[in-house]
Amino acid sequence: MSSLRIIWQCWKKDGGSGIRMGQSPVLVVGSVALDSVITPFGEAREVLGGSAVYFSIAASFFTNVRLVGVVGADFPENHIKVLKNRKIDLAGLEIKEGKTFRWTGRYGHDPNERETLNLELNVFASFQPKIPREFQRTPLVFLANINPELQMSVLGQIKKPEFVAVDTMNIWIEKNREQFIKLLRRVDMVVLNESEARQFSGEHNLIRAARKVLGMGPWLVIVKKGEHGAFMVSRDFRFAVPAYPLEKVCDPTGAGDCFGGGFMGYLGAAGRINEENLKKAVIYGTAMASFCCEMFSVGRLQKVTRRRIDERFKAIRNLSHI
Amino acid sequence: MSSLRIIWQCWKKDGGSGIRMGQSPVLVVGSVALDSVITPFGEAREVLGGSAVYFSIAASFFTNVRLVGVVGADFPENHIKVLKNRKIDLAGLEIKEGKTFRWTGRYGHDPNERETLNLELNVFASFQPKIPREFQRTPLVFLANINPELQMSVLGQIKKPEFVAVDTMNIWIEKNREQFIKLLRRVDMVVLNESEARQFSGEHNLIRAARKVLGMGPWLVIVKKGEHGAFMVSRDFRFAVPAYPLEKVCDPTGAGDCFGGGFMGYLGAAGRINEENLKKAVIYGTAMASFCCEMFSVGRLQKVTRRRIDERFKAIRNLSHI
Repeated sequence: MSSLRIIWQCWKKDGGSGIRMGQSPVLVVGSVALDSVITPFGEAREVLGGSAVYFSIAASFFTNVRLVGVVGADFPENHIKVLKNRKIDLAGLEIKEGKTFRWTGRYGHDPNERETLNLELNVFASFQPKIPREFQRTPLVFLANINPELQMSVLGQIKKPEFVAVDTMNIWIEKNREQFIKLLRRVDMVVLNESEARQFSGEHNLIRAARKVLGMGPWLVIVKKGEHGAFMVSRDFRFAVPAYPLEKVCDPTGAGDCFGGGFMGYLGAAGRINEENLKKAVIYGTAMASFCCEMFSVGRLQKVTRRRIDERFKAIRNLSHI
Repeated sequence: MSSLRIIWQCWKKDGGSGIRMGQSPVLVVGSVALDSVITPFGEAREVLGGSAVYFSIAASFFTNVRLVGVVGADFPENHIKVLKNRKIDLAGLEIKEGKTFRWTGRYGHDPNERETLNLELNVFASFQPKIPREFQRTPLVFLANINPELQMSVLGQIKKPEFVAVDTMNIWIEKNREQFIKLLRRVDMVVLNESEARQFSGEHNLIRAARKVLGMGPWLVIVKKGEHGAFMVSRDFRFAVPAYPLEKVCDPTGAGDCFGGGFMGYLGAAGRINEENLKKAVIYGTAMASFCCEMFSVGRLQKVTRRRIDERFKAIRNLSHI
């Protein structure tokens, strides 16, 4: 567990200056995949995907990113290049004999309605994340959606992180609930989508759901609501952000991971975790999620610039400012 | 049609000063009902309800309200008192031989899931709104959810309104679509909830839905999204507001009408329609809707004070401000 929770108690005494850590890199552990996606706007086959990929590219616009994951020997070299172009540190990307993790899915006109047509775990089935020595002192850690047992094993390999955030998925809430609850006691923040928050807490009302999760360990809970934006709750403050008003969601795959990437990346760049920066991080997360939806795979993320990201940050902030 | 649409074109040339009309009363035409409601938090029988009632009480905290509606001879005197206590002008409330409109409904844990168990139109079936002479020059008009034909007939009786807003319901979109489309050409603003916006526009994406409606006549469209807040679009600006984070929605009946009441009431009090006041009006509407949900019928609305309303306004505004 990070030292932040203790410091959090003194936060207000310090005049809200928060945790100073200086500009920091971000570590992410998650999936690297070949996705095939069908949406009402088209189709993509065996394109670059996976939670660690989306997260890393989104975060790379703000700070240095360290990726831990696994791919098979069939993983295309040009996908590696995409990640290297974004200066993502791939020292933790294991290349194993066998095939890369593959996912095939379909979305309807409602981007929240997602149907998995095919899932091949391949080399991901026996993934045992090993954190390279040079990654073990990363201040900011994001445990993307993988088995809570693996998330716990990663946490055990990190030395004194400043801030640990965890994402999950309905399957782990069903199949590995106890392990996930254990994990929650050791992290600073949890990111859930609407249906995960309801499923995990047993509360339909999202505010009650978030408060219940807040009572289980983390001092920060974010609920992502797709087209309805996101909200963040801590014991001391609440923050709500609308989604960027996209008229066309080309492919929502990875939007949640990009939210995490924008959020953590901005915190790493800001070098200080306080209420104001956490709120700004939510808006940057929302901005990256919106770019992600504009094209298939990481298409839009490869083309976006920091200037465009900052413009979108302002557009989202102004949406609800008077 | 109001003169506002023409003035709207010159808005920006005028430096955004908008429509000045001075403090104005608000006229509402809609239902006055006896509701019976079952929610997961309890039950209420034959309590005061109806769109014109919720709207009027919410608006009465800001400006003078003129109500047009009909009740039967059985309508309890104490309900009349509730409206009179809020200084609502009842010169337009017809009392007819027969029984008052009655609605019985049930909500689940999702406040958006509403089941109508019983509906007795009674005197409402033959309602022909007559606008009293002294009401005919009201600058602000709200056509609450009734048959679009009746809404049109009301509009014909109003002389030079400054701003006309219309609400509706899925049943009129299905049964009286052409009439509703005609009406849209003559109003300034339309308020729809999420499912009505989708149903009416045939677009799942709410931004596209709102833009499509914007192309059909009104220069302002508001989409209400319950627990996800609301957004407003015009040709020139967009505004999004989160819902007030209620942990318990005791009874959501009338929340949409209270949104309308807070919105129109604030505009009447402000005496000027410009971008800033329209945005503030959305927040006041959101505040009134949240109070409405806290108790059955108009219970909370009878007890709330302007001071509490202003506190909630600030709380909602601060939810998404940095």
